[in-house]
Amino acid sequence: MTKGLGTVETKFHVFPEGLKLESGKTLAPLTLAYETYGELNSEKSNTILVMHAFTGDAHAAGSHKGEKAPGWWDFMIGPGRALNTEKYFVICANVIAGCKGSTGPSSTNPKTGKPYALEFPAVTLADMVHAQVMLIDQLGIRKVYAVIGGSMGGMLALQWAALYPDRIECVIPIAATLKHSPQQIAFNEVGRQAIMADPDWQKGNYYGKNLPEHGLAVARMLGHITYMSNESMEKKFARRVKEDNGGFQFSPDFEVEGYLQYRGQSFVKRFDANSYLYITKAMDYFDLSGDKLFEKGSLDHARFLVIAFKSDWLYPSVQSHDMVRQLKMHNIDATYCEIDAGYGHDSFLIESEGIKQAHLIKHFLAKRK
Amino acid sequence: MTKGLGTVETKFHVFPEGLKLESGKTLAPLTLAYETYGELNSEKSNTILVMHAFTGDAHAAGSHKGEKAPGWWDFMIGPGRALNTEKYFVICANVIAGCKGSTGPSSTNPKTGKPYALEFPAVTLADMVHAQVMLIDQLGIRKVYAVIGGSMGGMLALQWAALYPDRIECVIPIAATLKHSPQQIAFNEVGRQAIMADPDWQKGNYYGKNLPEHGLAVARMLGHITYMSNESMEKKFARRVKEDNGGFQFSPDFEVEGYLQYRGQSFVKRFDANSYLYITKAMDYFDLSGDKLFEKGSLDHARFLVIAFKSDWLYPSVQSHDMVRQLKMHNIDATYCEIDAGYGHDSFLIESEGIKQAHLIKHFLAKRK
Repeated sequence: MTKGLGTVETKFHVFPEGLKLESGKTLAPLTLAYETYGELNSEKSNTILVMHAFTGDAHAAGSHKGEKAPGWWDFMIGPGRALNTEKYFVICANVIAGCKGSTGPSSTNPKTGKPYALEFPAVTLADMVHAQVMLIDQLGIRKVYAVIGGSMGGMLALQWAALYPDRIECVIPIAATLKHSPQQIAFNEVGRQAIMADPDWQKGNYYGKNLPEHGLAVARMLGHITYMSNESMEKKFARRVKEDNGGFQFSPDFEVEGYLQYRGQSFVKRFDANSYLYITKAMDYFDLSGDKLFEKGSLDHARFLVIAFKSDWLYPSVQSHDMVRQLKMHNIDATYCEIDAGYGHDSFLIESEGIKQAHLIKHFLAKRK
Repeated sequence: MTKGLGTVETKFHVFPEGLKLESGKTLAPLTLAYETYGELNSEKSNTILVMHAFTGDAHAAGSHKGEKAPGWWDFMIGPGRALNTEKYFVICANVIAGCKGSTGPSSTNPKTGKPYALEFPAVTLADMVHAQVMLIDQLGIRKVYAVIGGSMGGMLALQWAALYPDRIECVIPIAATLKHSPQQIAFNEVGRQAIMADPDWQKGNYYGKNLPEHGLAVARMLGHITYMSNESMEKKFARRVKEDNGGFQFSPDFEVEGYLQYRGQSFVKRFDANSYLYITKAMDYFDLSGDKLFEKGSLDHARFLVIAFKSDWLYPSVQSHDMVRQLKMHNIDATYCEIDAGYGHDSFLIESEGIKQAHLIKHFLAKRK
């Protein structure tokens, strides 16, 4: 693998006037956390927007000072990598309603001086995109070469294409969908119910007190199962019993149980429960099915690369087929690829599975119209 | 449909000496709740044992006095039905560790005079079968014509065959497996964690106090998603928004959310949280893979009908294939049928989907060797 980006920093931009949301409410002030990699060229034509997934953040690549682990898509972004920072100017911003530096339910409500909690307004994926448009406007960028992301990131890439067709050229939704199925909504709802069932949730007013960590951990454990494939769980755990298990109890006996608990507990330290509620609702409401992707303007000039993973049962490839069918029906240039990766929905995040994905994307981006 | 059984009653048998469990502990006294339909013939050769699924009970068919809804497998059991009570003597007993009349964690611990709670000993599927053997011994039945069940009921049927090969003839595991995959264990573990995360769980000592109903409802909601297929959820709910939804909130917006909440809440009234923990653990530990099904004695005389459902992603048909492969490798008479039913794992319980299943079983049973 090529050398990475080295040390990077998260930047913050504050928009004092804020953003008028789809609901009619205004979210002000609005802070966006973002990172950039590579240089904007003089024509300002080499921007690639990376959209993060549900629990992701702006730190997509490189390493923060003093931290060992690189950003969540480091194998994809850097000099000579699929999103080649010698060629492209890559931007990744944390979504609004998140908890990684952009304004969200844990941010201070200027009206009360306290965290918003459930006073935070409902946001949609369209609102998240509008906020990012304010950011690129601020950076002096009119047109974006490509918008790319996996899972919710792919849905955001589609939302970009739907809202700002004249500002984008390439769209790369990975393991995404035009809308959630009832099953996808149902899994999200169980996660939300697990959080809200935790008495420490306190109708969202837990800041500075006990966090609803049991509920959030249960939600994450469930999420984690849905992100993996049966096959990858089989490979990783089989039915091995934990070495330290003290016999039959309701403590974890199987390795898979201990792993899930570990994932649930470590998630609690890095993610805000209210952000979990707001962002999953935004995903559930997202709907670009039918002709809705094409309502704001022509996408005739755009090129789509739609990627799905064979072992992804949460966002099954049939949802990507639907997407490609819609695009083809509208005579849009769309390439579809189903990658035979075994890690389920998470395949797009995993370096060992990401070789084919990186290869496809690199060549798709190089083929400028 | 033929006329059903009419009014039936649950019976109880108490074994004062109890049962020695696999763990070495003795569970005494032991009560078994059971129902019987039809008449035992003079040769005592017409018994069919029905095994219930995880949250099922002894009330498989007919109606209890004053109750409208019949037992959980009423469309399968009765005069002229697949398990024809004019021909067969059908027995269904509640498993031990359950909460429907057989001794379980909510029963009184004779040592303390209080409910067992987590003082209840760990039980296995083998223990559940041993308890049933005591029951048929008591009824004077040596040989059983058929053992049948879906989901955990199918696993119990296999456990019967493994432990008492010389006492059974036909074995009909439906939507079952020889062992849980890590994914199946993981879903169970999230359910257990949801229960144990509820502060009302109180390490199992909630009897006579607030029940851990939030945790149990979350566990059930998750279970319910895994029992349905994506397709059946799509048909049932699409993405319809609830009529009474007051706009974007964290109350249920989509019908699927309201339905899950309803199912979760109604479950809380009929099932004990500690039974949930004990029985799911017993399922997770169950393992008849490899040659373990054949270790206690020859099954050469037995006939197997293995049924799987195409849309069942929780107990996918590949697990039934494995079962049939094992049986064929041991030269056992095994018929396999994958039914194209759309309701996912729950298909075996649903009358509209059950026609093919009923037909197959009726003819399989009629074909006495």
